[in-house]
Parts: sequence; structure tokens; C-alpha cells
Amino acid sequence: MEVLNTKVVIVGSGPAGLLLGQLLYKAGIDHIIIEQRSADYVAARIRAGILEQVSVDLLEKAGVDKQLKEFGLPHTGIEILVDGCKHRIDLSSLTQGKQVTVYGQTEVTKDLMQAREEAELTSFYEANDVKVHDFYEKPYVTFNKDGKLYQVNCDFIAGCDGYHGICRASIPKENIKTFEKVYPFGWLGVLADVPPVSDELIYVQSDRGFALCSMRSTTRSRYYLQVPVTDKVEEWSDEKFWDELKNRLDEESKNNLVTGPSIEKSIAPLRSFVTEPMRFGKLFLAGDAAHIVPPTGAKGLNLAASDIAYLSEALIEFYLSNSEEGINQYSEKCLKRVWKAERFSWWMTHLLHRFESDSDFDLKIKQAELAYVLGSEAGQTTLAENYVGLPYEIKSLKEAS
Amino acid sequence: MEVLNTKVVIVGSGPAGLLLGQLLYKAGIDHIIIEQRSADYVAARIRAGILEQVSVDLLEKAGVDKQLKEFGLPHTGIEILVDGCKHRIDLSSLTQGKQVTVYGQTEVTKDLMQAREEAELTSFYEANDVKVHDFYEKPYVTFNKDGKLYQVNCDFIAGCDGYHGICRASIPKENIKTFEKVYPFGWLGVLADVPPVSDELIYVQSDRGFALCSMRSTTRSRYYLQVPVTDKVEEWSDEKFWDELKNRLDEESKNNLVTGPSIEKSIAPLRSFVTEPMRFGKLFLAGDAAHIVPPTGAKGLNLAASDIAYLSEALIEFYLSNSEEGINQYSEKCLKRVWKAERFSWWMTHLLHRFESDSDFDLKIKQAELAYVLGSEAGQTTLAENYVGLPYEIKSLKEAS
Repeated sequence: MEVLNTKVVIVGSGPAGLLLGQLLYKAGIDHIIIEQRSADYVAARIRAGILEQVSVDLLEKAGVDKQLKEFGLPHTGIEILVDGCKHRIDLSSLTQGKQVTVYGQTEVTKDLMQAREEAELTSFYEANDVKVHDFYEKPYVTFNKDGKLYQVNCDFIAGCDGYHGICRASIPKENIKTFEKVYPFGWLGVLADVPPVSDELIYVQSDRGFALCSMRSTTRSRYYLQVPVTDKVEEWSDEKFWDELKNRLDEESKNNLVTGPSIEKSIAPLRSFVTEPMRFGKLFLAGDAAHIVPPTGAKGLNLAASDIAYLSEALIEFYLSNSEEGINQYSEKCLKRVWKAERFSWWMTHLLHRFESDSDFDLKIKQAELAYVLGSEAGQTTLAENYVGLPYEIKSLKEAS
Repeated sequence: MEVLNTKVVIVGSGPAGLLLGQLLYKAGIDHIIIEQRSADYVAARIRAGILEQVSVDLLEKAGVDKQLKEFGLPHTGIEILVDGCKHRIDLSSLTQGKQVTVYGQTEVTKDLMQAREEAELTSFYEANDVKVHDFYEKPYVTFNKDGKLYQVNCDFIAGCDGYHGICRASIPKENIKTFEKVYPFGWLGVLADVPPVSDELIYVQSDRGFALCSMRSTTRSRYYLQVPVTDKVEEWSDEKFWDELKNRLDEESKNNLVTGPSIEKSIAPLRSFVTEPMRFGKLFLAGDAAHIVPPTGAKGLNLAASDIAYLSEALIEFYLSNSEEGINQYSEKCLKRVWKAERFSWWMTHLLHRFESDSDFDLKIKQAELAYVLGSEAGQTTLAENYVGLPYEIKSLKEAS
């Protein structure tokens, strides 16, 4: 058995873990990343693609914003298509100039991995049987790699290993409370190398269900359809997908839609999930390990980023200023923002999707709510300010309000 | 049988019917009011007490605003008590100076009845077996009074006879669609001649359920408690009521609360209900006959007033300008505003009441929604602009936006 020593062990090398690693490295704090999957697998995962301004600022702070600045697409508005009528939400004018940036999570991950490689930081990929130990006292992590057993002693463990990860699963049941809502439908997503139907995202509410016209770049589109969660991806040929998407669009979008062969196609279930608290002694949960949002509203990656903003600041304060304040406030600060994003994601999902359980009254109320929100400046502003990201208090970020 | 002829028969002499009568009278349009109950019964009914600015303007236009102007209490804000913390919604500053007026529906009814008496207009109270006939062609209304049968021939019938009235019940089932939601709790209301606990209304969200501290004047208070709909009013002594109200208040309000003997005590069920359309040939439904809102948000009387604003304008246009435009648009115009008020009333009810069916996740989402709404200027504005009343298009009202 090989014994290693470090300050922070990060379990999971998704964007949350990699970003934390990068920020700790910048602050000169020794750490190790341990990941069960291979680097190629992690890099290839298709996920979200919308960054809040504060997430962009954090990547800039981590020094991994070169590609993002060059290839990211700033968006100052979104379209909402209701009963065949398009309504533009002018995000920037409603939020004193804020915007979002379209840049795939896959790209964020690649940029962070490359920066990590260049800095020659320690990562163990394809680590088997990862276990976190004694995190209320003297934490350490064990794992197997290439038939060799490792033990890493540390001050803190950052659980960035996602919803199915081992960190949350290791917490004694009596110390954790979880909140969950599962939705009775999924999103069928198609990635295709075709120019997007519109310069801006189109969120579609229709009698046939929700759809989203999104993009990763000016030449790569990402489209989604609400489908029954029981559907199999094999049942959806490209042709069937494009036909159904057209059925949910307005005339103009239908005519502008460029179709092409899918390069990825999958069905993702929708879930709302929150863990309380997010700190357990010397173990912190961050990102999907602590909370899941349905993708409507594009909050998943951004919430992971804000957790890491709080966590990196807390750890840097601890090591550089000898203060436990940030560590002690971590859970509360994160959860305050997490629940507001959960609320927004639930609301967008609720409002734009078709639920079989909706009564005629429920459908009318949704219609009235959309009519009110889209027809009122205050209503539009509530949507816009949540979409671009609610403020959070990070001393070291320029865009802190 | 006595046969009478008039232009408009108004069924029901609640505030909707009386206000319509007064506006038609002002325009010189001949009409008759027919009411099943006695005038004393109608005048004594305890109902809502918050008037939107547009409702005040309409009463001014009807020439029945003398008492209202003298005794009505202008309110520029409301308080919302969440988890023991009070948050003030500054209605006026959030809505460019709009406000609401506290003035009991009982008083509105009395003022309208007095004006009607002074103008010596025809009303039949205690009319039995009221029936509306042939309203798709040549409408007439029949009823019995003091053993005598009456038939009133007319051009139009205004169904202002409430949720349990005969007008809506007379419409062929295939011509009408209704939308309904029944809530699993009621409001236990107490009226008492004690000064209100605060200058402004306090809407209370608490673990023990919703409460509302309201008033009719500076010496008469109206308090409400959310109770199971199965509770009987006999089970609630005055003492038990005041004790439970205190349990739901913050320290300051608890200390300021002046209790006293109740002069009225009742339990009202909560219901959302809408009829589509609101016009059936020459029969118009208005007010509670067409729609019910739960009282949270104080929209019931105000929606009746806006129906009457549209209906009186339509009828005046028809008789004075020979135009059917207003009549043809009546249903659509009303319903647009009705559904937004239904949405707002449902939302306030949903957010501030305790539902037994709420999951832990639902409760957290409500908490996050309250935190967001109360903490964001845009969020507060959505509440304020709905509370003071969304705009409606009435050519003849000064305050039309």
C-alpha cells in the first residue's frame, strides 16, 4: 500500500472537482484528484451549455478562460414560444447589462483538464473502490489503481463525484436529510453539426409538450424534446425527432430549422434533489453530489460553480488566513443559493412542460401565469434575473452583486 | 300575471348588480333588479374589504363614493409575516403611487342601496322562483312575489346572482365550460369592534397555518385563521380563536393585539372557479356568478367591479352609440383579467397556506419562493402590481392603466 499526504482530496474530476483543483493550485494549496472513470470518459460527457456571468468570472479567476473568451457566445436574450407566439426576454436590459455565455460543459471540462495537465497536478483516473474514511475526525481516502492500494491522508475531502458518487453515500443516514422530486417525463436530446435555428435559445411551450432549441456554437446545435420517461432512445430515429421538433415550433422557426444526422442522442430523466447540510465534518459536498436541478433554466453547472466559489474561498481562507469562518458558513451560504435555483428550475419546468396530471384548471393557471409573466416588466425581470444568475457573496470575485 | 318591459333585467342585488344598476341609471338606461333575498339580508352579508383603485374610480363614476371617500382607509403597503419575520411590501412605491382602499363590502352595498332608493329605481326583493327564459332570442324573466306572478320582457339579462344563483344554472350544459379547484381548508373569520393590531394588513405564513390580520375601520378588526374545512364554527370559542391567532403571530403583533367579543364568526370554504364564456346570447354573467377566487389577495369584489365596468360600458355603447362591439368583446375582455386574478389568488393561497399534501420538497420550494419574492425588487413588484390590481381597458375611467 502506498500512503500519500495532501491538504485536500477532491473526489471526482467533473467541472466542479477540476475547477476546485485549479483554484486551490492558484492559491498554492496542495491537493489530489481521484476519479473512478477514465479521463476520456469524463471529457466526452455531454452536458449543459449556458454559463452565468459569475461562472465565467470564476473561470477567468482560475485562469482557464482563454478558449471561453474566444469561442463562447454571449447571449443577451432568450425567446419563449407560447402557443405559437414568440416572446423575447431581453436579459440584459432587464438586469442592468448582465448576460449569459453559451459554451459547452464539455469544453469547460477540456479546458480545465488541459490547464491541470500543463500545471502537472496529481490526478488518479480509473481509481477503483474509492472510499472516504473518518471525515468527522482525521479524514483519508483509499482506492485501488492498477492492482495497487493507495491511502491519501488529508485535512479535507471535497465530494465532487456527482449524484451517484460515493461521498454522499458514505454519510451516516442520521446526519443527512434529502429532498427530492422526480418528474414524469424526460428530455430527449440530439446534438447535430448544423447551424442553430436562431441566434438565441428558444424555450418552447406547446400542447405537444416542451422543446428547447439550444446550441453549443454557431455550427453545432443542441435540441431537446419532452418525452415520456418510459421512451427508449432507439424508438427515436433522427427523422422522427426532427419531425416532432417541427410539430412544436412556430412557422418561422420550422422554416429556418436545418436538420442533419445526430452525433449524440440520449434521454435524460428530470429530477430535483437537494442534500442538507452540505458539510459533514471535514467532508464537503459540491455540485451534483449535493443537488440536482432539472435542466430547464440551465442551472446545474452554474450551481456547481457557485458551490466551488464558496468552497475554494473557504479553504483558501483557512490555509492563508487561518480562519474557519468560510468553512463554517459553507453549507448555509450554498443552500441559500441552491434553493433559489431549485425553485427557479422547478418553476420553469412546471410552467413550460405538459404534465399528464394537470387538470383543466391547472392548465389555465399556467397559461395565465405565462401571459402575466411575459406581459409584465416585473414578471419578465423575475425570469431574467434568475436566468442570468442571482447574486452571490464572493469577496474575491469582481462581479459579486 | 303582471307583464313589465325594460331594457336590462339584473338578477341579484349584491354589489355587482347594484353597481351595474347605478351605472345604467346614470346613463339613462331603463332596468330592473330582481333579488331572491330580502334587502336586509343582502345588506348584512359580511364579505371582503379591500378595493383596488379602479374599483374606487368606478364607484366614483357611479356617484356613490361620498362615504367611501370619507371613511375608506387608503393603504400604501401590506405586511407579510414569514417564519416570525415581518416584510413590508410598499405597494405604492413599487407601482408608481397606486394604493388600495380598506372599505367593507357591506358598506359598498349599503351606499349603493341608498343611492338606488334615492333615485327611486325599481327593485323586487324577496322574489320567488326567479327564472330566466329564451336568452338566446327574446329574453324575459319570470318570478313570484307576494303570491303574484311577474314577467319582465327585456333586451338583456345580467346574471349577478352569485355562485349559487339561477342564471348560470340555466345555461345549457353544452354551451358552458367550468374550471374548478377546491382547497382542503377554510378561513375562520372573526369580526370584532377592537382597533386593528397594525395600521396595515398582515398576511401570516406560519407552521401552524395561514392567518390574516385585516380591518374594516380604525375601530373594527377582521381576523382570519386557516382551519380544516371540516371544523365547525361552534368548536371555536372567542378565546380559542384569539389564542390560536397569537400562536401564529410574531412577538410584536402578539403584544399589540387587542382582543374582544366577536360580533360575527364564520368559516368560509376556499374555492377557485371560472365559467367560460361569460356571455350566452343576451345573458351576461358577472361577478361570483361567473367566477370565484379564494379570498387571499382580496380579488373577489374587485373582479366583480371590473366585470361591471366592462358590462356597463358595453351596454351603454349599445344603447347610446348603437355599437355591439363591447357586447361581443365582453366575455373575452373579462376572462383575460379574470384568469390573471385567479392566478394571483391561487398563487397567494398556495404560497402562504399549509397544505397537508405538501412534501418536504414542496415546503422548501415555497420557502425559497417567499425568500426570493420578498428579497427581490422585481419579485415584490409582481406581488404589488397584482395586489393593487392589474390594468384594464375602460375608455370612460380616468385610471385606465
